Amino acid sequence: MAGQGPTRERVEAAYQALETGDRSRVAEYWAEDMRWLVPGNHQLAGWWEGLDGFLDFMGRVGRLSGGSFVMKREAVLLSGDRSADVSHNVGYRAGADGSPSLYDRLEIDVIHLLRWRDGRVVEGRGAVFGDGTTTFNQFWSQVRADGVRTDG
Amino acid sequence: MAGQGPTRERVEAAYQALETGDRSRVAEYWAEDMRWLVPGNHQLAGWWEGLDGFLDFMGRVGRLSGGSFVMKREAVLLSGDRSADVSHNVGYRAGADGSPSLYDRLEIDVIHLLRWRDGRVVEGRGAVFGDGTTTFNQFWSQVRADGVRTDG
Amino acid sequence: MAGQGPTRERVEAAYQALETGDRSRVAEYWAEDMRWLVPGNHQLAGWWEGLDGFLDFMGRVGRLSGGSFVMKREAVLLSGDRSADVSHNVGYRAGADGSPSLYDRLEIDVIHLLRWRDGRVVEGRGAVFGDGTTTFNQFWSQVRADGVRTDG
Amino acid sequence: MAGQGPTRERVEAAYQALETGDRSRVAEYWAEDMRWLVPGNHQLAGWWEGLDGFLDFMGRVGRLSGGSFVMKREAVLLSGDRSADVSHNVGYRAGADGSPSLYDRLEIDVIHLLRWRDGRVVEGRGAVFGDGTTTFNQFWSQVRADGVRTDG
Repeated sequence: MAGQGPTRERVEAAYQALETGDRSRVAEYWAEDMRWLVPGNHQLAGWWEGLDGFLDFMGRVGRLSGGSFVMKREAVLLSGDRSADVSHNVGYRAGADGSPSLYDRLEIDVIHLLRWRDGRVVEGRGAVFGDGTTTFNQFWSQVRADGVRTDG
Repeated sequence: MAGQGPTRERVEAAYQALETGDRSRVAEYWAEDMRWLVPGNHQLAGWWEGLDGFLDFMGRVGRLSGGSFVMKREAVLLSGDRSADVSHNVGYRAGADGSPSLYDRLEIDVIHLLRWRDGRVVEGRGAVFGDGTTTFNQFWSQVRADGVRTDG
Repeated sequence: MAGQGPTRERVEAAYQALETGDRSRVAEYWAEDMRWLVPGNHQLAGWWEGLDGFLDFMGRVGRLSGGSFVMKREAVLLSGDRSADVSHNVGYRAGADGSPSLYDRLEIDVIHLLRWRDGRVVEGRGAVFGDGTTTFNQFWSQVRADGVRTDG
Repeated sequence: MAGQGPTRERVEAAYQALETGDRSRVAEYWAEDMRWLVPGNHQLAGWWEGLDGFLDFMGRVGRLSGGSFVMKREAVLLSGDRSADVSHNVGYRAGADGSPSLYDRLEIDVIHLLRWRDGRVVEGRGAVFGDGTTTFNQFWSQVRADGVRTDG
C-alpha cells in the first residue's frame, strides 16, 4: 500500500486488530516507530513512544478500567495520508461499575487524528469534545471523588 | 449542492467567508440553524445556538483576544456529510501581547468536526490536542495569572 | 478594636452580618477597601476589589445558585490580625435542585484566610480542599454537563 | 501535652522535624495513624494514609522536584486542637530548573489545616489559593508542556 492513503476499511481493520491484542496482527496496521498523544494531564496523558509504548498505554487503559471500555465508532474521515475517526466511549474505573460519579464513570465523544505511512499508522492524537477533557482528567485521576487514592 | 458532501475547497471557503464578518457571505456556508460546541468549561465553552449565536461567539473571540487570533489550517479530512479540519491557533489576551503566561498567550492544535447539509455547516464541534484544553481554560478565564479579573 | 486581632465571636458576627445583606451592617465588619480572592478559573474566580466588589460577588453567588448555598462553619482559627474559618458548603445551580451532576451540585470543604484591621476584614482568600477546585470550576462554569450554556 | 492544643512553636518544630527526614524525630510530631490530603487530581493528590504514607508522599515531592522545593511559612493560626499554616511554595520539576513553564515551575500560596492529638498531627489537609490548584495539577502532571511523559 506504499504511497496510498488509508481507506475507511483499513482504519476499521486497524482498530479491530488492536482489540485482539495480538501483537503481530497489531503490527500490520500500527508502525513500530508510531507515537500516540493522549489528551489531558492525568497519568495516561502525553506522548506514548513506539508500538510498545502504545500497547503499554492500551494495556493500562484495560487494567484501570477493568476491561469495561467500549468504543463505538461513529465516523471515519479521510484525506491523503490522514484519517480521523470519531467515537463515543464509555467505561468504568476498575471496581466501580455502576457508580454515577465522574471520577468513576467516563462517557465522552472523542476524535483521533491518524497519520499513515505505507498502510500503517505512524502517529495518532486524540482530542475530546465538550468538557470531556476535564472529566477525562477526573476519570484517570489517581484519586476518586472522596480523595481515596487508587493504584496508578 | 443538495445531497452532496463538502469538498476541501468548500471547507476552506466557509472559513474564509467567516473571516470577512460579512453576514450574508457567511450565511452561504453556515446554516441559520447551525450550532457550535466550544470545548472546555470557560466563559466561551458550550453550545452556541444558531448562526447568530455562532457569530456572537466569534465576535467575543475577537474582542477578548484583541483580534490577535491566527488560525493556520493544516489539513481537511472528508467523509460524506462531514469534514474535519485541523489547525494551529495562536493568540493573545487583549492587552497582553507578548506575555509568555499561559493565562495570556494561547497556542493550541485543534480539530473541528463539521456536519454539512446542502452545502452549509449545520453543526461544528471543536476539540484540542494534548493538554490544550487546560490551557484553553486558562486563556479564556476571566482571571489572569495574578488573579486580577478581566471583563467577560 | 484598633490594634487588636479578631476573636472567634467577631469572625462569626462578620459572616452573620454578611448574610443579612444589609450594607451598613456588613460595613461594620468588612472594610470599604477590602479585597477577596475566589479560587479557581471560573466566572467568579479572582480578586474582587472593594466592599462593593465583594458584595457584587456575593450577589452573583446567590443568583447563580438560586439562593441555595448553605455554609456550615466548622472551625475558626486565629493569630494576630488573621483568622481562618473552615466550612462545608453545599449548593445547587439555579434551577437544578436535586441534580447529582458535578456541574449542578457543589459540595466542598473550604477554608477562608482573613486579614483584619481595626475590627474589619481587609483581605480574604478562599481555598478548597481535595479536588474541590475542579468541581468548583465545573459548578460555576457557564456550561452544564451536556454543554448547554447558561447565563453568566 | 495530652489535652492541650498545638502552639505556634510546636507547629514550626513539626515542620522542621519533617525536613530532617529522620523518622524518629518526625514521629515525635506526626502520629503513626495520621493522614494527609493533597489537593488536586494529579499523581500525588488524595489521602496519604499513615505516617509511612505521608513520608512516601514527601519523598516523592522531593524526588519529582529534584529537592528544589522551598516552603516559606508566613503565618500559623491556632484554635483548640487545630492549627493552620500558610506558606509560599516554589519549586521546579526535576531537571527543569529555570524553565518558566507552568508545567515545570510551581509558585503557589497554600494553607495546611492540621488536627492535633496529644502533641502530634493526626490529620492534615492542604489547599491552594487563587488558581494554584490548576497550576499544581500541571506541575505534578506526568506530562510536560510539550506532551513528553515523565516518570511518575
